[in-house]
Amino acid sequence: MFKFEILHQSKKSEARVGRVTTKHGSFLTPAFVAVGTNGVLKAVDHVSIAELALPLVFANTYHLMLHPGADTIEKAGGIHQFSGRTGPIITDSGGFQVFSLAYGSVANELKSKGKKKHGNSVLSITEEGVVFRSYRDGAKITLTPESSIEAQKKIGADIIIPFDELPPYHMDEPALQRSLNRTHRWEKRSLDAHLANPKHQAIYAVCHGGVNPDYRKESARYLSSLPFDGFGIGGSLGKNRQELAFVLENTIGHLRPEAPRHLLGIGDIPSITDSVPAGIDTFDSSYPTKAARHAVAFHPDEPVRLKSTKHRESFEPIEQGCPCFTCKHYTKAWLHHLFKAHEATAHSLTTIHNLSYMTRLMTHYQSLILSDQM
Amino acid sequence: MFKFEILHQSKKSEARVGRVTTKHGSFLTPAFVAVGTNGVLKAVDHVSIAELALPLVFANTYHLMLHPGADTIEKAGGIHQFSGRTGPIITDSGGFQVFSLAYGSVANELKSKGKKKHGNSVLSITEEGVVFRSYRDGAKITLTPESSIEAQKKIGADIIIPFDELPPYHMDEPALQRSLNRTHRWEKRSLDAHLANPKHQAIYAVCHGGVNPDYRKESARYLSSLPFDGFGIGGSLGKNRQELAFVLENTIGHLRPEAPRHLLGIGDIPSITDSVPAGIDTFDSSYPTKAARHAVAFHPDEPVRLKSTKHRESFEPIEQGCPCFTCKHYTKAWLHHLFKAHEATAHSLTTIHNLSYMTRLMTHYQSLILSDQM
Repeated sequence: MFKFEILHQSKKSEARVGRVTTKHGSFLTPAFVAVGTNGVLKAVDHVSIAELALPLVFANTYHLMLHPGADTIEKAGGIHQFSGRTGPIITDSGGFQVFSLAYGSVANELKSKGKKKHGNSVLSITEEGVVFRSYRDGAKITLTPESSIEAQKKIGADIIIPFDELPPYHMDEPALQRSLNRTHRWEKRSLDAHLANPKHQAIYAVCHGGVNPDYRKESARYLSSLPFDGFGIGGSLGKNRQELAFVLENTIGHLRPEAPRHLLGIGDIPSITDSVPAGIDTFDSSYPTKAARHAVAFHPDEPVRLKSTKHRESFEPIEQGCPCFTCKHYTKAWLHHLFKAHEATAHSLTTIHNLSYMTRLMTHYQSLILSDQM
Repeated sequence: MFKFEILHQSKKSEARVGRVTTKHGSFLTPAFVAVGTNGVLKAVDHVSIAELALPLVFANTYHLMLHPGADTIEKAGGIHQFSGRTGPIITDSGGFQVFSLAYGSVANELKSKGKKKHGNSVLSITEEGVVFRSYRDGAKITLTPESSIEAQKKIGADIIIPFDELPPYHMDEPALQRSLNRTHRWEKRSLDAHLANPKHQAIYAVCHGGVNPDYRKESARYLSSLPFDGFGIGGSLGKNRQELAFVLENTIGHLRPEAPRHLLGIGDIPSITDSVPAGIDTFDSSYPTKAARHAVAFHPDEPVRLKSTKHRESFEPIEQGCPCFTCKHYTKAWLHHLFKAHEATAHSLTTIHNLSYMTRLMTHYQSLILSDQM
């Protein structure tokens, strides 16, 4: 079922235009992947934004396991049926959130919600997996490669991700090597669990190795030797765009070239613009939707800060010529008013624009690659 | 431009089916009027819910005066152009909110937002009007019959309301009589200001008199002698449904029968069900949209409390056969998940259902009246 075709390899860079095909439809790459942590994007429901034709939506297994639970989603007929999204969906393994707790860099997503009823805590990390307490109800939960894959099978996304360890940015080399080895064992176990019951899903490995070029190479080569359908680039991606470029340079050349490459959790526009020529096919990030909720609307010139008083009487759309629902029907002045009046529709309407912007940006990059200009 | 036609007078009660025609379209009565305080309903934008065909939307002049200001709305081309609502809109005078401050019963709407930066305060009430401080920025604002009408002209709703005094429930008779007299003088001044510049708008008087039948009769008769296009029933409407029925009984018979009758701020279903046979044509209330945001979805049997654990695996719509967007595309289990995960789309989707429910309820009442069963 799952297929990745390279339609054009740029003569100018490592960039390529590809097509990913899944059971729930296909999309062209490079593509931006919107984040819908709880199975839904913040402030917009899937059916209402169908006309945006989002290529892929990223949902978080950790959150979905804790609520409503993978079993409930399976009973609902899977995440597509449950959430109303008819297009492709990808889920992560849950590991990222769990290790964010263990190593102190609690995911912003959780932090900013301010809804925690119980302290998050990791109780143990062993070769078997991780035991942690649910932030929702304090229940003790074990996450292993096998249980993560089992949950992702029940959730039923089109693309799933093996369970990995997320080491912190600052880790000494022996510890990083130990972590890398364990991640590789966990990913192999995840792959085996997946292959025992593929269910039309694809599985992307997650390459690790921090900012160490030898480890990155080792990870890319080892994971490329296994029958993964694609490769995520994860772990510590460096602390700035230079380090990110260095990581990509030391990873991409060692991956099977015919497989899709996904950059995990990076979605600011300058990083995307750098990483497409490096050979990245897909990017996920909550940045465009989060920026929208903070009244920052994307624009080719510079971001439009909708709360600024200068937009009080801006009776024109966010972006002239933008085909999105918001730009078609509403003005910056109206959005300014909605933000100032604390109306929730401000979030929905600006989110729609930013997602449209990202889709158009990626379509633009596709056309640049097709003409070997990128 | 404005027209009210009575299409059928029930043989069973004072209820009638009518048609209100405005510059922005017509609608049948009895009708429920959704409240969009800041010119927008909470959690849903006007264009997205166009298919609900809401007959009339109620916006608050007090809020719109403070932000973005009546001048800005005028420059935008009026509230329809600004907000994206193409159907009929009604605005109030601003008096209700101002007097809620003066008499201590601060409007819930303001209270529940918790966004006040400045203490609300009324500085003076004279024959001329009211001076108060803006809760937004502390600015001193004067509201008079003339300035309220001027603001409503700039906002540009289809139906406007004269400036009145809102006396508290507990007021001694001489004070209530003085208040009533002043309200009548203010409404006459408002009408004169309106007639000097009608701008295709209609103006509905507001009948007062609290729960005193003599005052109610006096108010209805006096206001009926003036060329108002319709009548609102306002002021204190009693503390329960019995008192409300008493107020209506002592008001409606004294109003010009061919004019539309609007019950101000009452929208709970039992009160509507009582008041239609009493002869009320339109009702406004924030209750259906507020209930939705509190996870209460309307249903013919009993309200569906979507946060209840019993809906965790209710894989069916809120209401079988409901034609609304939400019931067409989503299940109670999904809405339960969205509410539990604090996702804003829970509010939007439940609001759409409750507004659809109210519209269908009123259509049902229209058909009962047409066959003299109500």
